[in-house]
Amino acid sequence: MTIGVDDLQYKENGLLPAVIQHFETNEVLMVGYMNPEAVRRTQESGTVWFWSRSRKELWHKGDTSGNVLYVKELFTDCDQDVVLVKADPVGPTCHTGARSCFFERMPAAIAVQPGIPG
Amino acid sequence: MTIGVDDLQYKENGLLPAVIQHFETNEVLMVGYMNPEAVRRTQESGTVWFWSRSRKELWHKGDTSGNVLYVKELFTDCDQDVVLVKADPVGPTCHTGARSCFFERMPAAIAVQPGIPG
Repeated sequence: MTIGVDDLQYKENGLLPAVIQHFETNEVLMVGYMNPEAVRRTQESGTVWFWSRSRKELWHKGDTSGNVLYVKELFTDCDQDVVLVKADPVGPTCHTGARSCFFERMPAAIAVQPGIPG
Repeated sequence: MTIGVDDLQYKENGLLPAVIQHFETNEVLMVGYMNPEAVRRTQESGTVWFWSRSRKELWHKGDTSGNVLYVKELFTDCDQDVVLVKADPVGPTCHTGARSCFFERMPAAIAVQPGIPG
């Protein structure tokens, strides 16, 4: 069974999160939101469209900056409420000029898996 | 400046999405949601906590399945409304038994970056 745009679960405000990952390095570049029309345009154009929550309008990533995201593979998750796009980015993805939006490190305890008893 | 739990932007229902990525392969394993208490417990315990939207309660990933996610690195994005956890997973992350929740491929036009002329 192929999962289509209308099979996805749009929960908060009719949107779902879309994780954008570099298709070669697997680096997570950004997370945006899509409504059904943004998913449809992403599927049809092969470039990433979002719904801008602040501007309340469809947003073709790269229209202003030139930093388009070309779709390489598209996935959804086991309950169909998130989309994952493996993409080939033109230039930096973040509006700050960074390659990825996830450059802000937060403190956390670093844990290790318990060893297997010997 | 260190970004703390209270600096994050919890938008829809007081939650933010948390992308869980394998710390070695960079595979995206799942996306869940966190409220401030889930972020705090994740930072303090070194294992991933979520807020379950369906059960409306804090959820320590792996408590039932044993498939705990050990935190290796924690990031937020440029507007502090998403969290990214690089984690060391015990066993499969998806409740279906799959390693990642993102195993459902969707159709999409595959585009290529325009070539550089000349």
